Amino acid sequence: MQLSSSDILKLEQRFRTNLINCLSGFKTPHLIGTRSKLGITNLGLFTQVMHVGANPPLMGVLFRPHSVPRHTLENILETKEYTINLVHKAMMEQAHWTSARWEKSEFEATGLTEHYSSNHFAPFVAESKIKIGLEFKEQHLITANKTILVIGEIKELIIEEELITSDGFLNIEAANTLAMTGLDSYHDTNSINRLAYAKPDIPPKRLD
Amino acid sequence: MQLSSSDILKLEQRFRTNLINCLSGFKTPHLIGTRSKLGITNLGLFTQVMHVGANPPLMGVLFRPHSVPRHTLENILETKEYTINLVHKAMMEQAHWTSARWEKSEFEATGLTEHYSSNHFAPFVAESKIKIGLEFKEQHLITANKTILVIGEIKELIIEEELITSDGFLNIEAANTLAMTGLDSYHDTNSINRLAYAKPDIPPKRLD
Repeated sequence: MQLSSSDILKLEQRFRTNLINCLSGFKTPHLIGTRSKLGITNLGLFTQVMHVGANPPLMGVLFRPHSVPRHTLENILETKEYTINLVHKAMMEQAHWTSARWEKSEFEATGLTEHYSSNHFAPFVAESKIKIGLEFKEQHLITANKTILVIGEIKELIIEEELITSDGFLNIEAANTLAMTGLDSYHDTNSINRLAYAKPDIPPKRLD
Repeated sequence: MQLSSSDILKLEQRFRTNLINCLSGFKTPHLIGTRSKLGITNLGLFTQVMHVGANPPLMGVLFRPHSVPRHTLENILETKEYTINLVHKAMMEQAHWTSARWEKSEFEATGLTEHYSSNHFAPFVAESKIKIGLEFKEQHLITANKTILVIGEIKELIIEEELITSDGFLNIEAANTLAMTGLDSYHDTNSINRLAYAKPDIPPKRLD
């Protein structure tokens, strides 16, 4: 099927939303934990989380337009601290449920547990096996549709030790970390292999 | 294991690079096809590809700092056109191989096939089952480490029709689309389920 720009614009709205959301491929759902200055916690499910750099260690999160209340973004801008927590299979329903319109804290609502470290104001998710504490660095407004990219620096990592291999590779599959596609489809994964650093004239080799 | 900011900075460089690269979770490798004004094609493997919006249909790609030649980015800025092609299992070695330092076009080097549509200057990858033609819209420089976010608008979609379900959801798993973690680890996936739009006081239900 070949769709032109005008074909895409003519698609029924929900059909187009589902289709376009799937094009970026598999993502991992991440729970972002924040706390307002008044102490009210918030937990939100985000899939547009990206690696920005290792030195300094930076991650990015893309937020929907700030035209309705966005507690996660507001708390980050207010307190400069947030946590990103990877979601594994046993947390799937609770993580998905955080995206409902709750009046109370999503921790209380879904039964996920707040965890605090002495260095960080924002709550981690106790159940997550890979917890990341971040400090806000900068934001960028995408003018084409008013989405907002937030960049943060990693200030703390709390990771189950057996997931880290000798060269630093983190076995997120062994943690049953979920893959997600589109708005609502969850998947688990099977490792095929790691491939060695690519060089010309030698086809890629398995790294074992 | 709990690592503070200073612990992270003390990690051996390659260990830190692997670890930090894994924290954003599963990604799908995407091949970006471009062509210079002189007609020289280029194909590069990118994992930091994101959904930015469905109306207008927008995608983002994060590029490493522009301090060494970056043919993909240069061609995009020069011609304003590029393609994003999802990578499935049968293309894994060739896609990974594009990341070697080739003197010639990565199409010629790896044996992947250029495909042209009448509407688009940049080459698609014939082997890909999900091909996206884009037009450059805007770029943002991340000041913290000089990476560059490029936003493009989708102008054309070429997709194997049986992958698209009745509500627009694209079954990228049925296409054997790869998931990737870190710099070099490839995975295939198994669907768990889709979950219905979340509402308070009703735990998430399977969407069948």
